Amino acid sequence: MAIHYPNGKKYTLTPNKTPSTTYGNRGMTLEEDLNVTNAFYRDRGICLIHKKPTPVQIVRVDYPKRSAARITEAYFKKPSTTDYNGVYQGRYIDFEAKETRNPSALPLQNFHEHQIQHMEQVKAHNGIAFIIIKFHNEGTPYLVDADLILDYWKAQDSGGRKSIPKKIIIANGQTISIGLHPRIDYIKAVDAIYF
Amino acid sequence: MAIHYPNGKKYTLTPNKTPSTTYGNRGMTLEEDLNVTNAFYRDRGICLIHKKPTPVQIVRVDYPKRSAARITEAYFKKPSTTDYNGVYQGRYIDFEAKETRNPSALPLQNFHEHQIQHMEQVKAHNGIAFIIIKFHNEGTPYLVDADLILDYWKAQDSGGRKSIPKKIIIANGQTISIGLHPRIDYIKAVDAIYF
Repeated sequence: MAIHYPNGKKYTLTPNKTPSTTYGNRGMTLEEDLNVTNAFYRDRGICLIHKKPTPVQIVRVDYPKRSAARITEAYFKKPSTTDYNGVYQGRYIDFEAKETRNPSALPLQNFHEHQIQHMEQVKAHNGIAFIIIKFHNEGTPYLVDADLILDYWKAQDSGGRKSIPKKIIIANGQTISIGLHPRIDYIKAVDAIYF
Repeated sequence: MAIHYPNGKKYTLTPNKTPSTTYGNRGMTLEEDLNVTNAFYRDRGICLIHKKPTPVQIVRVDYPKRSAARITEAYFKKPSTTDYNGVYQGRYIDFEAKETRNPSALPLQNFHEHQIQHMEQVKAHNGIAFIIIKFHNEGTPYLVDADLILDYWKAQDSGGRKSIPKKIIIANGQTISIGLHPRIDYIKAVDAIYF
């Protein structure tokens, strides 16, 4: 089913494509940094985690002679899972990365129902599920277990907040150290929480 | 990089789209059957396994007013991993499904280098990696540990066979029971081999 989300994520703010002064002047989005980090982890044999491809509904494909098949009509689909998964020390690892321009809280509208359900299922199957969160006004991302998001998500129905305060994220999560190699060394935070 | 593989898999034979008399007359491909099976497993809380989206390089997108963003130029990319992964009893599960029209052996050209490397890495991280193989001339698929494919793959360099005989697959693998719900009950074979 085609839907109207240009990047498959209705509520995620568009990552800053221009060089950012708040994030090491590299102009990298959180996603780009995580992709480079995951490649580093794979090369070093630390863990095996990939970003899933963006789901696309393909409607029409041309097959020109002697050149690559060309998709000429397709639509973005809503992902049914989180974006990243893989294996670390035999355990199943699953996470979602979120950037927000909000300086003091992570709006829950950054998530959609499918992602919430998926994270619940990962926990039910004894997998490791977490979120990496980056606030636009600072360089350091945080890692929190998915339970924090699941708790806040459920509390909305009984009049709870529509966002998770940054101080709650800091109190319940781990600060991720950033550097050059790897850029976002989140596996240390995984070690601290789960191993 | 755009490449000339209409379905992202150069060597996989096109699954039979017409009703098949050899496979329960349902006209379903192995992939379709696995998707239905995985949905069944998820609904029952047995395991949480998804097929990864087909990787696509998006070149041009139109954003018409008041309707869905439309991809007007894109190309198939070679997948960097296997097609299926997820979690079962906390363990990381990773597999590839292959159909072949060859009645007596699985040609190794059904795999590409990236998939082989990925399966090796999964094993190195203590994940569970296997292949589900369906020969076109019979209904029953087989499940074999990835090591069998990795062994044959490596042996090619020293003059080994270019395919894995079906009798070797049967001797080293598990026969998967097929039915209506679930269609391809591969988790029983996983239990038998890994748990």
